[in-house]
Amino acid sequence: MLLLSVDRQRKIPLFKQISEQIRRMISIEVLKEGDRLPSTRELANQLKLNRSTISRAYEELWALGFLESSSGTYTRVRKRAALKATELNEAVSAPTHLNLVDKLTPSCKKMISSLPKTIRLFEPSEESKDLAHDSKVIDLSTLSPDPQLWPVDEFRKTLNHQISFQGKTLFDYDDPAGNLGLRTALAEYLGRHQINLTPDELIITNGAQGALDLIFRSLISTGNRIITEKPTYSYIMPLSKYYGANLIQIPTDHSGMDLKILEKTLKKEPSSIIYTMPNFQNPMGISTTQEHRENLLRICETYKAPLIEDGFLEELKYTGKTILPIKSMDKKDYVIYIGSFSKVLFPSLRIGWIAANPSYIEKLIELRRMTELSGNAIIQATMAGYLNNGMYEKYVRKIHTKYRERLQVAMQAARSWLDLPGLKFTKPSGGFLFWISWENPPCREDYFLKKIQSKNISLTPGSRFFASPQVHINMRISIARANPEEISLGIKEIGSTIREILREKQ
Amino acid sequence: MLLLSVDRQRKIPLFKQISEQIRRMISIEVLKEGDRLPSTRELANQLKLNRSTISRAYEELWALGFLESSSGTYTRVRKRAALKATELNEAVSAPTHLNLVDKLTPSCKKMISSLPKTIRLFEPSEESKDLAHDSKVIDLSTLSPDPQLWPVDEFRKTLNHQISFQGKTLFDYDDPAGNLGLRTALAEYLGRHQINLTPDELIITNGAQGALDLIFRSLISTGNRIITEKPTYSYIMPLSKYYGANLIQIPTDHSGMDLKILEKTLKKEPSSIIYTMPNFQNPMGISTTQEHRENLLRICETYKAPLIEDGFLEELKYTGKTILPIKSMDKKDYVIYIGSFSKVLFPSLRIGWIAANPSYIEKLIELRRMTELSGNAIIQATMAGYLNNGMYEKYVRKIHTKYRERLQVAMQAARSWLDLPGLKFTKPSGGFLFWISWENPPCREDYFLKKIQSKNISLTPGSRFFASPQVHINMRISIARANPEEISLGIKEIGSTIREILREKQ
Repeated sequence: MLLLSVDRQRKIPLFKQISEQIRRMISIEVLKEGDRLPSTRELANQLKLNRSTISRAYEELWALGFLESSSGTYTRVRKRAALKATELNEAVSAPTHLNLVDKLTPSCKKMISSLPKTIRLFEPSEESKDLAHDSKVIDLSTLSPDPQLWPVDEFRKTLNHQISFQGKTLFDYDDPAGNLGLRTALAEYLGRHQINLTPDELIITNGAQGALDLIFRSLISTGNRIITEKPTYSYIMPLSKYYGANLIQIPTDHSGMDLKILEKTLKKEPSSIIYTMPNFQNPMGISTTQEHRENLLRICETYKAPLIEDGFLEELKYTGKTILPIKSMDKKDYVIYIGSFSKVLFPSLRIGWIAANPSYIEKLIELRRMTELSGNAIIQATMAGYLNNGMYEKYVRKIHTKYRERLQVAMQAARSWLDLPGLKFTKPSGGFLFWISWENPPCREDYFLKKIQSKNISLTPGSRFFASPQVHINMRISIARANPEEISLGIKEIGSTIREILREKQ
Repeated sequence: MLLLSVDRQRKIPLFKQISEQIRRMISIEVLKEGDRLPSTRELANQLKLNRSTISRAYEELWALGFLESSSGTYTRVRKRAALKATELNEAVSAPTHLNLVDKLTPSCKKMISSLPKTIRLFEPSEESKDLAHDSKVIDLSTLSPDPQLWPVDEFRKTLNHQISFQGKTLFDYDDPAGNLGLRTALAEYLGRHQINLTPDELIITNGAQGALDLIFRSLISTGNRIITEKPTYSYIMPLSKYYGANLIQIPTDHSGMDLKILEKTLKKEPSSIIYTMPNFQNPMGISTTQEHRENLLRICETYKAPLIEDGFLEELKYTGKTILPIKSMDKKDYVIYIGSFSKVLFPSLRIGWIAANPSYIEKLIELRRMTELSGNAIIQATMAGYLNNGMYEKYVRKIHTKYRERLQVAMQAARSWLDLPGLKFTKPSGGFLFWISWENPPCREDYFLKKIQSKNISLTPGSRFFASPQVHINMRISIARANPEEISLGIKEIGSTIREILREKQ
């Protein structure tokens, strides 16, 4: 006799409850191939159910291939080649056949795992901010715009407007280059930074990271060199490794990459691509001068080296005179300019872009068509609308006021509390970041981090941005997700922690 | 008076012809900032067109930011920051420094350019459907769900509901594995197909194409083999080439891949990955039996070959008993199951998925984090809501009725008009496609295609789905975007065209 039970209180139909239980019995081989099931009449009597309920359950099991279909009755367990038992909780190790080729080398994997887990589920949102307040943790690490300033309602209105207006067009495959409306609006927007181009010189990507990946895919193979600032954006490192390129970091101070060393390096290594972030650089917060940019471009032209210019936070300059993007001076098409709305508006948009020579863009479009067909037209068209209706500009003006204030507070606090021997900090003219260097500290980074964490301060350790170990301790400080009081208090605590360590180790 | 012209013979919609010309005039400053355009009535009279066509053109120009949006009329050229003169027609050659490493080999590029341009701007949408009616072209080629059946309003409601409900969380970075809500809903949805898994065994991708690319990235390197059906999904071919894999096609008839030949091939080539589409296969429309699936899985286990199962149109079975996905029998984790909502709901969602062993999924997540950070939480959470509130199921039931009818009409027409010597066609139990084979035809494919195009029938030539040239002429017929009358008429025309050619060549 089959041990089955049904529960009339449950929302699942009775026949479904029965078929599920029998299916499970077959899966764990309580019922084996060829086993006979009770007749519908027997089982109906046993369970005090209508016979038709049992018939439905059997019919379903037959339709799913669990029961024999011959002779019109469904009363034998069918012979099956391989049925997965639902041992979902059992520990499963990767079968070796899936390691056919493991493109992620161990060093590459190690690198990835040492990266900040910036991407956390449902974090950092308003909720986690509240949590941060509760637990008194001051967040000086997150590099992502403050959700409290996000124009969710305006964006939603634009979204609804675009759907009403453009209708089904937005739900179909779109151009693999990205939505034409968005590329047109973006061309206009880049024009404000004196980057003059047509929509054909643009491709929309999955954020700036997707842009880097697409460029690396198209240009890098094993043995090429990627030349970056030292320190540089941390995600460049695993990506370079993944594509088999050698990463070379060029010493960088408050005025940018050392161009003499760059030139020497290029002489030795002609097959190189240069990556630079000229504004409010991640991690140092520095910006290069117009002159530095012109010289960098001239070097690229001389050594025929493509230059990836990451226009990170291009629109977040708070003080000082405008400095033009390198792309705006790029007469000979050496610059591949990338950007993103993730760090200014919403990270989840996943809208980044590449601006470059149109025949190179054409190649990237083919690559993207082959790998993704196209992007999300709904979100892209909404972003186009949001640019065209002037709301983006208004929003940027609003956040300027807020972030400028935070940065001023940070600089004031740094002047007050970080005036210590061996300590230096950068003085950014925009963006979210500044950089503290502690030269020849009497302890290791680990020790310092433990101390600072115990004071409920969260910051990003500088070692993440170097390809090789460093003697100094460096810290990246982000003002993106802390309010002025927190910023001031946090920097004061950093200062007093350093003082404590200096006293301790004397 | 604006000097515009339209050409009814061209395939470009009339409104598009107009908007293009105006866009060009603005670009080259024939129309300047603030210039007034003629009213829709004036221009309609001038061009002898319907006023609504002019309105559409103006609306598009407005959406693209070329016209002023104020006061509800679209009749003034908008002030724009910087528009580069569109020297679109000028030949631009790629600077050689961007060819540092050209990963797209010439044969790969040739392959891509021979693919159908399925991705066309604003096409095929309702508008182009109307155009198709105007110009009497019957579309039997597009493999993409019919916009007339799309539940845009319901989806938009769910979208707004999710934004109100989850708020800013949806606008921040999300899990690189994909939105947890969506993975949970998807796990439940796949359970209906007897694929029992947890959200940790799933990763969300940029459509099924993005899923294939991610799998190929993680598993394939130069010299590996990809084994597919013959014919197979056309986009597999350039992707395999791009990753340096050799593609081997296994003869496939109405019952699926020839498993004896598959086994022989695997004996010779152990480092192989198999790709199969067991339901309503693209291009043939065939489905394999439960037994064929069990045997295929057994072969994969024996030769330790991972199996990519493309669950294309899994939910579009109209007739016959359910056949379970191979993944549902996969005890030993040999199957990497992929799927997508693009071909059932909206292509622009760009939501696909991979279901596989969790430690392999973990590896894919790291890869995705490194290359894209995360996906679009707004759209993914909306899809989760749309699954959870039962609307997706309701929608699928609705389209079942429609597409089943179209397929029945197609089969009836095929029986009536394609009963010719040397002609065979498949009889699918679901999906959008069927396949006509013309054995030993007296002409080449080109000749046939020219003939059939002259009858205003658009279909997909079979040669696209083979890695090597074929003797026979094959045709892929899609019922996705034609109504029953068109389908019937289209198939009749195919029959009579073949008859004509047979007579001609006698």
